[in-house]
Amino acid sequence: MENLVPEVLQGSIRAMAKLITLVENEDSRSLEFLGAIYPHTGKAHVLGITGSPGTGKSTLTDKITAVLRQRNQTVGIIAVDPSSPFTGGALLGDRIRMQRAFGDPDVFIRSMATRGNLGGLARSTTDVIKIMDAFGKDWIIVETVGVGQDEVDIVKAADTTVVVLAPGLGDTIQSMKAGVMEIADLYVINKADRSGADALVTEVRIRVEQDAQIKARPWQTPVLKTVAVEDQGTESLVEAVDHHRKFLEESGKLKKVRWEKTRQETLSLLKEEISRNVLEKILGNGRFDDLIDDIIANRKDPYTSVKEIVETLFSDE
Amino acid sequence: MENLVPEVLQGSIRAMAKLITLVENEDSRSLEFLGAIYPHTGKAHVLGITGSPGTGKSTLTDKITAVLRQRNQTVGIIAVDPSSPFTGGALLGDRIRMQRAFGDPDVFIRSMATRGNLGGLARSTTDVIKIMDAFGKDWIIVETVGVGQDEVDIVKAADTTVVVLAPGLGDTIQSMKAGVMEIADLYVINKADRSGADALVTEVRIRVEQDAQIKARPWQTPVLKTVAVEDQGTESLVEAVDHHRKFLEESGKLKKVRWEKTRQETLSLLKEEISRNVLEKILGNGRFDDLIDDIIANRKDPYTSVKEIVETLFSDE
Repeated sequence: MENLVPEVLQGSIRAMAKLITLVENEDSRSLEFLGAIYPHTGKAHVLGITGSPGTGKSTLTDKITAVLRQRNQTVGIIAVDPSSPFTGGALLGDRIRMQRAFGDPDVFIRSMATRGNLGGLARSTTDVIKIMDAFGKDWIIVETVGVGQDEVDIVKAADTTVVVLAPGLGDTIQSMKAGVMEIADLYVINKADRSGADALVTEVRIRVEQDAQIKARPWQTPVLKTVAVEDQGTESLVEAVDHHRKFLEESGKLKKVRWEKTRQETLSLLKEEISRNVLEKILGNGRFDDLIDDIIANRKDPYTSVKEIVETLFSDE
Repeated sequence: MENLVPEVLQGSIRAMAKLITLVENEDSRSLEFLGAIYPHTGKAHVLGITGSPGTGKSTLTDKITAVLRQRNQTVGIIAVDPSSPFTGGALLGDRIRMQRAFGDPDVFIRSMATRGNLGGLARSTTDVIKIMDAFGKDWIIVETVGVGQDEVDIVKAADTTVVVLAPGLGDTIQSMKAGVMEIADLYVINKADRSGADALVTEVRIRVEQDAQIKARPWQTPVLKTVAVEDQGTESLVEAVDHHRKFLEESGKLKKVRWEKTRQETLSLLKEEISRNVLEKILGNGRFDDLIDDIIANRKDPYTSVKEIVETLFSDE
C-alpha cells in the first residue's frame, strides 16, 4: 500500500482501481493518498453527460469514447447510478451493457452507486476524477442520470457538460428549468430519427436563444442531433466539445471555472471531514445516544444541546 | 419578537407563520426559539404523502384534510416542492390550486421550496413540523414529490407514510425499489378509475407480500384504491391511517420510531450548525479564498489542507 500512489502515477491500472476502492470505502489514509496525487491533476478534460433515464446517455458515452480512442486519447468513464428508489431498474441494465462494450485497456470504467447520500457521492465522484486524472487519462466522462439537484452538483465537476434529451420522453421546454440552462454547454437531441425530434430541436434552440439574450453569455450553446445507436452525429458532437474546450482555454474561462470548482470541492470535503470527526470524537462512546435519551425524556431539547456542543467546539476561536 | 414563542403556543396563526419564516431564513435566534417550543411538541400525528409527479398527491391531501376536518381535527400541511431542474413546471400549478382549496382557519398550509439544498430542506421541514406541532395541530401532512433519496429523507420525518401510485405513469413493480418498500406504511393507487389500476393493485400487493415474507414485518401494509378527484376511497384511507397509528402506539413501535427520528434530526442539525460555524469563524475574512488561491498555484492541496484544519479544530478533544 506504501507504493500505491507512485504506481498509479506510473500507470498501473490495478493500482488505480485499488486506490479508487480505498477512497470509496473511506479508508483512513484516503486524504493522504489524495493529497499525494493532487499535484499531478488538472490535465484531463472532464466531460459531463446528463439527462433523464431513457435518453440513451450510455450509448452516447460508448460512441464518444470510440471517437476519442480513434484519436489515440485515453478515456476514464465514471457512471453514476443514483439508485433512486423512484427510478426504474433500467439503469443497472445500461451499466452492464456498457461494461461489456470495451475490451480496451485504455478505457477504464467505474460504476458508482449512491449509498443513500448523494452529497457524499458528489464528493467521491470528484475524488475518482482526480485519481483518473493523475493516472494520466486524457478524457474523463462522468455520466449521470439527471433527476435532481444533486446530480446537477455531480455534473458541476465537469469542464464541459452535455445535456441529452430525446423525443417522446416528455422532455419538452417545460422540463428545462433554470438549473439545466445553467449547466448545459451543449445540448444533444439523441434518438433524432424518432418523430418529434425536429420539434424538440426547435424548442430547445428557441429556449437557448431567449436565455442568451437575457444573460449575454459569451458561449453560444449548440443544439446537436445524434442517433447514438447508429453512430450518427457523434463525431460532430466530439468536435463541438473540442470547440467548447478551446473556448474555455482561450477566453480565460477555464481558470475561473476551475477556481470555483476547487472552492466547492474543498468546501464539501471540509464539511464531510468535520462531520466525520464530530461523530467519531465528540459523539463516540454512546454519548450521542445518551443525549437522545435525555431529549426523549424531555430533560433536554435538541436545539439547545446542539448550540452547546457547537459553542464548546468553537470556543477557542 | 420576544413574545413570539408564547404567542405560537397560545395559538396565534400570525405568530406561527412569522416563526416559520424566521426559521426558514436561518435567523440567528432560530435555535433558541426552536429550543423553547420543543417541550410542547410530540402530540401531532405526522402523515407523509409521497409519489411521482402526476399521481394526484395534492388532490389526495385536500380530500384527506376534508375528512380530518369533519372530525374536528386541525391540520397543518407542508407542501415540499423540490424544484428539481429536471422535473416540470406542473408542481407550481398544484400548489396554487391547493392554496385555493381552503378558507378554513384550522387548516394551515405552508409551501417549501428547495434553495439548491435538499439536505437543508429535510432539516427545515423538521423544524416546521415542530412549530406546527407546538402550535397545537392534531395532524401534520407532509407532501413531497418522490423523485430521489432526499425526498425519502424528508418523508422519514413522518409517523405514517403513504406512497401514492397511479396507473399509466410507468409506476410499475420496476419502480418500487427497496427504498420505497422501507418507507411505505400504506400504498394508495390513485386515479383507480383509469385502465390499468387493478393490474397495478395486484402487482403492488404481490410485491408487498413477497417483502413481508422476507422481512417478517409485524405491520401488514395495505394497498388501497382511491379516486381523489371524486372523493372515492379517501374516508377508508384515513381509517387505514388511524389503524396504522393505533398499531404504532400499541406495539410500542411509535417510541422506537421517534427515538430514531430524534437521533437523525439532532445529528443533521448538529452537522449543519458546525458547517455554518466553520464557514463563519474559521474561514471568514477571505481566509478560505486565500487557501483556494494557494491550491490553484500548487502551493497546497485541498486534502492535506482540510486534514490540517480539522486536526486544529479537534486538537483539544
